[in-house]
Order: sequence, then structure tokens, then C-alpha cells
Amino acid sequence: MGISLAKLARQLGCEVSGDGACQITAVATLQSAGPGQISFLANRRYRKYLATTKASAVILRPDDVEDCPVNALVSANPYLIYARVATLLNPLVPAVAGCHSSAIIETGCEIDSTASIGANCYLGANCVIGAGAVIGPGCVIGRDVIIGAETRLVANISICDGVKIGCRVLIQPGAVIGSDGFGYAPDQGHWVKVPQLGSVIIGDDVEIGANTTIDRGALEDTVIEEGVILDNQIQVAHNVRIGAYTAIAGATAIAGSTSIGKRCQIGGAVGIVGHLSIADDVHITAMSLVTGNIKQAGLYSSGTPLGDNKAWRKNAARFGQLDEMARHLRRLEKKLEDK
Amino acid sequence: MGISLAKLARQLGCEVSGDGACQITAVATLQSAGPGQISFLANRRYRKYLATTKASAVILRPDDVEDCPVNALVSANPYLIYARVATLLNPLVPAVAGCHSSAIIETGCEIDSTASIGANCYLGANCVIGAGAVIGPGCVIGRDVIIGAETRLVANISICDGVKIGCRVLIQPGAVIGSDGFGYAPDQGHWVKVPQLGSVIIGDDVEIGANTTIDRGALEDTVIEEGVILDNQIQVAHNVRIGAYTAIAGATAIAGSTSIGKRCQIGGAVGIVGHLSIADDVHITAMSLVTGNIKQAGLYSSGTPLGDNKAWRKNAARFGQLDEMARHLRRLEKKLEDK
Amino acid sequence: MGISLAKLARQLGCEVSGDGACQITAVATLQSAGPGQISFLANRRYRKYLATTKASAVILRPDDVEDCPVNALVSANPYLIYARVATLLNPLVPAVAGCHSSAIIETGCEIDSTASIGANCYLGANCVIGAGAVIGPGCVIGRDVIIGAETRLVANISICDGVKIGCRVLIQPGAVIGSDGFGYAPDQGHWVKVPQLGSVIIGDDVEIGANTTIDRGALEDTVIEEGVILDNQIQVAHNVRIGAYTAIAGATAIAGSTSIGKRCQIGGAVGIVGHLSIADDVHITAMSLVTGNIKQAGLYSSGTPLGDNKAWRKNAARFGQLDEMARHLRRLEKKLEDK
Repeated sequence: MGISLAKLARQLGCEVSGDGACQITAVATLQSAGPGQISFLANRRYRKYLATTKASAVILRPDDVEDCPVNALVSANPYLIYARVATLLNPLVPAVAGCHSSAIIETGCEIDSTASIGANCYLGANCVIGAGAVIGPGCVIGRDVIIGAETRLVANISICDGVKIGCRVLIQPGAVIGSDGFGYAPDQGHWVKVPQLGSVIIGDDVEIGANTTIDRGALEDTVIEEGVILDNQIQVAHNVRIGAYTAIAGATAIAGSTSIGKRCQIGGAVGIVGHLSIADDVHITAMSLVTGNIKQAGLYSSGTPLGDNKAWRKNAARFGQLDEMARHLRRLEKKLEDK
Repeated sequence: MGISLAKLARQLGCEVSGDGACQITAVATLQSAGPGQISFLANRRYRKYLATTKASAVILRPDDVEDCPVNALVSANPYLIYARVATLLNPLVPAVAGCHSSAIIETGCEIDSTASIGANCYLGANCVIGAGAVIGPGCVIGRDVIIGAETRLVANISICDGVKIGCRVLIQPGAVIGSDGFGYAPDQGHWVKVPQLGSVIIGDDVEIGANTTIDRGALEDTVIEEGVILDNQIQVAHNVRIGAYTAIAGATAIAGSTSIGKRCQIGGAVGIVGHLSIADDVHITAMSLVTGNIKQAGLYSSGTPLGDNKAWRKNAARFGQLDEMARHLRRLEKKLEDK
Repeated sequence: MGISLAKLARQLGCEVSGDGACQITAVATLQSAGPGQISFLANRRYRKYLATTKASAVILRPDDVEDCPVNALVSANPYLIYARVATLLNPLVPAVAGCHSSAIIETGCEIDSTASIGANCYLGANCVIGAGAVIGPGCVIGRDVIIGAETRLVANISICDGVKIGCRVLIQPGAVIGSDGFGYAPDQGHWVKVPQLGSVIIGDDVEIGANTTIDRGALEDTVIEEGVILDNQIQVAHNVRIGAYTAIAGATAIAGSTSIGKRCQIGGAVGIVGHLSIADDVHITAMSLVTGNIKQAGLYSSGTPLGDNKAWRKNAARFGQLDEMARHLRRLEKKLEDK
């Protein structure tokens, strides 16, 4: 049930070094791979394992071929080739087409005959489910939801009324799409709910992590453009727009009406306040707080370095005196000049 | 199916400017509104769209009437009036009263005949569900839970044993109320679980966001007072008390036994450590960390500003030298005086 | 239905002060306890309530016996004894053995006859569920999952394919174990998914909080060792390893391939970047960001203190000038020396 190295090379557009007839059946790390397994070397830190690998083949860069003790697939982008090989060798278990007998489906739904609706799912009225889509067990889909072809919802996911999800989207368990945005009008010390009448539009090829939440817009829609990848436990507030192919790591929170550009890379646990505009190709390091527009591509950060608690306490206390320190410095300079 | 501007004005206690007979059928933004739609102007940043709006009417302040090219509803608080108009024009789809045939309901439950229990719900023994309450699909409700009249649980929500929820509460999908608090006694390097015997009390008119978690108390209860609004992905630990009408933005985490006052406004991704007391009317900016009591109303912050990563690295490195810098400054001053 | 103080003392290995025949039926705080109730004094801040307690008995340290107005259980670790007494007096409501009629169980599962599978659960093919395990309502368990004896999943939990969970594990609602790690290879501005082929291994006696997420490994497994306690809303990325008996507070996020030692204590809302190694017995304060390896046990922190917003703005602005301030200081010193 393997595939030859030569065939992999042809399919993926890379070169073979060594025995093209070698049969590959699985992927593994350089350290753990054995016969029939292919590994990869993309990150320098693992180079030390190359010389002793027991893999049948390694995917690596042209520079590394010379030091490879076994067969190789040679590519300028070994991690990408690895991703494709791993996908070929580990096809998804196909879901059973049709609606599980325990699924509850309201009237007016159009479910493609090749789609799969899992056990204990609920679909509200007038949903449209595309060809090959898979709605895993325990999902709740509201009214008037559209889910594109080949999209997969793993399990226990909540999609609220009117949300539109593109094709080939993958959503991990516990995610919530289309919950009400956090909109309230103050009225004499009380909060009056502002109906959240917009929806959420998810583009094609988006991935959404476990327990990530994306709120519906207040009047217009929250938009996640095509190819965006969102990690776990991300909070996307109402009327946010995330540009195509942007990647956001886990536990980041984005406040309302902020617009993030295309191809951004945002680290984990970042906070972004509302009503901001962030340019394309912006990178932000983990746990930074963004409080103003970012108009230029580049790498941005905030925060302070980790330290031993005892030293940190002293330095942190000085932070509260920083403005006075700066003024002190200028006074000293003046005194010095006056002498 | 519209409502006249004059009738809206009468119902909501504001003034009409222009044609009171104008029929309103929907709400929309200033930029997108067309005939039959009403918009609003509350935030200065949208004033530029007023002159060219195609809305049939705009809700605005007396000062803005002069510049409004169309009919207007005039109020000192246009956002509040907008919230009420949007609510009038967008009534909730009424839920079907009764228990869905797929719902599992244990013995001893008292479910009001006007309440709605959705598909695939589970209710433990002896629950009490009030008039007009709506338990959406996929919710799991533990034993001895009380849910007040008109309260709505959207979908896939977990309410643990003995939790008490008030009237007109709205809970978004994925929220968990009454999970065990994080209480353990150390025993020779191991952790021994401390039974979490308190419960959670949620007041009337509270709103709870998607995937927000509220732990049950250790011995006494965790309490969310009336009118509190909690955004998504908030963590409320055991024995926390949140005062009435306090608003907390997404991804904020509050550690155990902390008490937050009334009418506070807490930004997103804020951290509040345990056993603190925070006064009424405290406002905290996004991503601040609160490590001590706050005794006075006011606006509080922590953190450092975002910067270009290269500059930030230099400044952050200096943070670790701050105490030495301050001492250096004093030594210099002394030297200068001695000269 | 009580238990005598003498019997408690014998069972738990501590001393009685006062009347050993006193019957105890429940636990309560020093302030609220009444007849038949036992309280405890572990934290100095509650000592003020000892003199007036109406408890029938108090669990306390030898030093405090003298000031105790009622019977006492005397121990060097009163909080641990309290945990054990509370557990004895509040046994879990036993779950009904067997599979609820609404549960959907695929072929090939081995479910111990003493295990309980709740309403509306889904179990994929070939799962193994141990003796006395309790799978609460609404849980979705993937294919080939192993769940050990006495493990409890409260409700609405998602366990993905192939995850292995030990014995006596407790998982709160909404948790997700085994979701795909966040692994993508860049390809000309797009992201290509890297199949996540590892799994998650959860050791014995682990506790996992509500809405916590633990991703499966990319090639090898994500590992949570025995006795680890994880609070709510924690994000554990792929290939993380958390050492035995480590405790992590809520809303902390740990990026991929980081290894955390044994017996660590990590505060809430901490961020830990990827590919790090953290030694045993490391303590980290709330909301710190860890960006480098930690090689020595100790207490670590980052961040800045909370301040009044007006003062904070001035100091935060100076943070952006810190490097220049430090250089300025040195220039001044030089000038002074040159005079």
C-alpha cells in the first residue's frame, strides 16, 4: 500500500536522490523513522538527527543532500513537500454520505446527497449544505445557514442563524460562529442590548481552531476572507474583517470593527483593540497589545522581558517612576550645563 | 409591515423632524441605508456620511438635525433609541413551546408550558424552567438547575448541577456555567482535589458570551449580579462576585474570590488576580493586569506601547536595567552636587 | 448520616481536640457554619473569624487550637484534611451504569459494564471505555479513543480520534482534546495544511478545565503527564509536554513543542512561546510572557504594574524612549567626568 519515491517526486515536482523505486508507506520524524517511512529536514535545529536517521528517505533542500545517509526527495521547500506527502499517505477517513438517523433537520434544508450530517446534529430551517460537506456529531446549525462544498465541521460546533461558510473550510470542535456581538447602549447606568443584525461570512479554504469564537456583525457582516488560518481560542468580535491568508495564533482577541490586512501573521495571545486598521503583511509578536492603526508592513511588539521575580519587582516599580526619571535626567543635564 | 416615524417617536419619547408619516421597515448604516430604512448617528466618526445618506430617516442628536438631509428622530441618546428601534423592527423568531421529541428530560423537572426545550437537549432531575424560557439545541443542564422566565440559552451550552439563573438572561453558545473551581490542596508534591460545593447565581438581565466559563464556588457561591454583560471567552473563577451592570470585554480572566464593583467597565484580555476587591465604577483598559485592590473609581492601565520590533527590543532590554538606571541617576546627581 | 470527629481523625491521621463524639454532617466556612458543620482555618486572612465561629468543629494547625472556641481536628496541613473531609461528606452522585438509549455507539467499542455513557453521546468505532468511567451528556468521542477507569467527562466534551486518556481523569464541560495542531506550510503566500498525525496522551489523575483545548501532535504526541491540573480556557498547542503535577491557571496559552517541567506552577493568562524548555519547579506569575528557555527553578515574571491611566500614559510613553534615556545617562556621566 506504499508509493514509490519516484512517483512522489513526479507528482510533487521534486527530484529523487538515490533509489526511486523505494516504497514509502508513512511519514515520521528523523529520530523515529524506520523502513518504509519518509522524514523531512526543514528546520536547522533538527539537522543533527540527519546523519543517523533510519528513514527510507528524507525530504530536504539541495544543500543537505550530500549529508543525507539515505534516499532523498529534494526540494527548495521541504516542509511544503512534506505536507503534501503526509496528505497523500494519510487520506481522510471518508464520512458516510447522508443524514444520521439521530440528526434533527428542520424543513426547507437543501442537503447535497454526498454531504454527511452526523449523529445528534441539529439543522435549522432552510440550510444549504454543499457537496461532500461533513457536519460532525453534535453540531448545531441555525436557520438559513449556507455551508460550502467539502467543508468539514469536526464536532460540537455551533453555527448561528444566517452564517455563510465557503468551500473546503475546516472547523475544529467547540468553535462558535455567529454569536451575538457585544453591543449595548447605556441607559441610566443599565445596558440595553443592540440587536446584532449582521452575519458572518467565512471565505473558502479558511481553518478555524477549537473553541474559537466569531461574532456576527451589528448591522453589516463580520468577514473572514479566503485562506485565513485561525488557531484555537481566538476571539473575533463583531464587524472585524480579516484579510486573505492571514494567520493568527491561539488565544488572540480582536475587538470590534477592526480590519486586519492580508498575509498578516499575528502571534498568540495578542490583543487588538477596536476600530483599528492594520495594513497587509504586518507581523505581531506574541502577547503584544495593539492600540493604534498600523499603516506599514513590518514586525511589531509590546511588553517587557521575563525576569527573575525579585529583579523584576524592582524594575517594574521603576516603571511607575519613568516619567519622573526622564524629567530628572533633563534637570541634571541642565544643572551640568549651568555649572 | 412598517411603522411610522411619528409612532416610533411617541413610543420611544423622542421628536420627529420632517415627515412623521414616513414608514420605516428596517435599520441600516448611514452609508448603506435606502428607502424605508432608518439609520443613526451616534459616533462622530460617521458624521461624514450624514450629508449623502439615502436613509428615509436618521436617529440623531438635536445638534445634528440642521445637517440632516432626510427625516430625523431626535434624541439626546441616539444610540439608545437606535437599539430600541432595531429591537422593535427585528422581533425574535418565537421558539416553539414545549419539549422537542429528541430532548431527554429526567424526572422531577418543572417546565413551564410556554418554555421551549430544543432538540437533543438534556435536563437532569428536578430542574425548574420558567415561562417563555428557551433552551436551544444541544444544551446540557445538570440536576436541580433553576432557569428564570424569558431566559434564552442559544445552543450547546453546559449548565452544571444546582446553578440558578435569573430572568431575561441571554447565554451564547458554548458557555459553561458551574464547572468545578480550580481548587486543590498540595500533598507531598501531588494535588488533592477540593470538592467544589458552592454554586453559581446569575442575576436577572445578565448576558453571557460564547465560550465564556463561570466556575462554581468552593463553599459559597460565585455571583453575577443583575444586568452584568460578559463578552466571549471570559474566565470567571470560583467565588468571584461581579457587581450589577458591570461590563467585561472578551478574553478577560478573573481569578478566584475577587470581587468587582458595580458599573465597572473592564477591557478585553484583562487579567485580574485572586482575592482582590475592585470598587464601583472602575474602568480598566485592555490587557491590563490587576494585582492589587482598587479602592477608587477611575481609569486604570498597565502594559507598554506597541513599537517597531527593533526599537522595542532595545527598550525592552533596558526595562531589565531600570532599577540600575534609577540608581545611576541618583549617583550622578550626587556627584554633580559634590563638584 | 454524620460521621464522628473521632472517626474522621482516625481515618485521616490527625488529632481531635475536644469532643470526639461530635457528629459532623457537612462542611462550611468559619463565618457561615452552624451545628453539625465542620470548618477549616488554613489561610491567615480568615483567622479573625475563628473566635466567633458557630461550627461544631474546625480543622486547624496545632498553633491555632488554643484560640479555637469549639472542637477541632488538628493537622499540620488543615487544607488537605479539609479536602479529604469534604470529599468524604460529599460523595459523587453515582452515575447509572450502561449506555443511555439516546447514545450512538459505533461498532467495535469495548465499554466496561460498569461505565456510564450519557444521553446524546456519540462514540466512534473501536473506543475502549474503562470500568466506572462516566461519559456525560452530549460528549463526542472519536474513533479509537481509550478512556481509563474512573475517568469522568462532565458534558459537551469533544475527544478526537485516537486520543488516550488515563484513569481517574476529570474533564470539565466544553473541553476539546485532540483537535488538529496549527501546522501549515507556506506556499507562495497561501497556507497548505500539514496533517496532524500525532495524538494526545493524558496521564492518570489529570484534571482539565472547562473549554480548555489540547491539540494533537503533528507527528509525535502531545503529552500531559500524570497529576497535572489545568484550569479553564487553557490552550495547549501541538507537541507540548507538561510534566507531572504541574498546575496551570486559567487562560494560559502554550505554543507548539514547548516542554514544561514537573511540579511547575504557572499563573493565569500566561503566554509561553513555542519550542522552549522550562525546568522543573518553575513558578511564573500571572500574565507573564515567556520567550526563552527557563533552566532553573524559581519565580519568574514580566509585565508592568497597574497605574492610574493618566500617570501610566506618561510612563508608557517613556518606555518607548528607554534606550535613548539609558544612552543619555551615559553621555551625562561622561560629561560630568570630563568637567
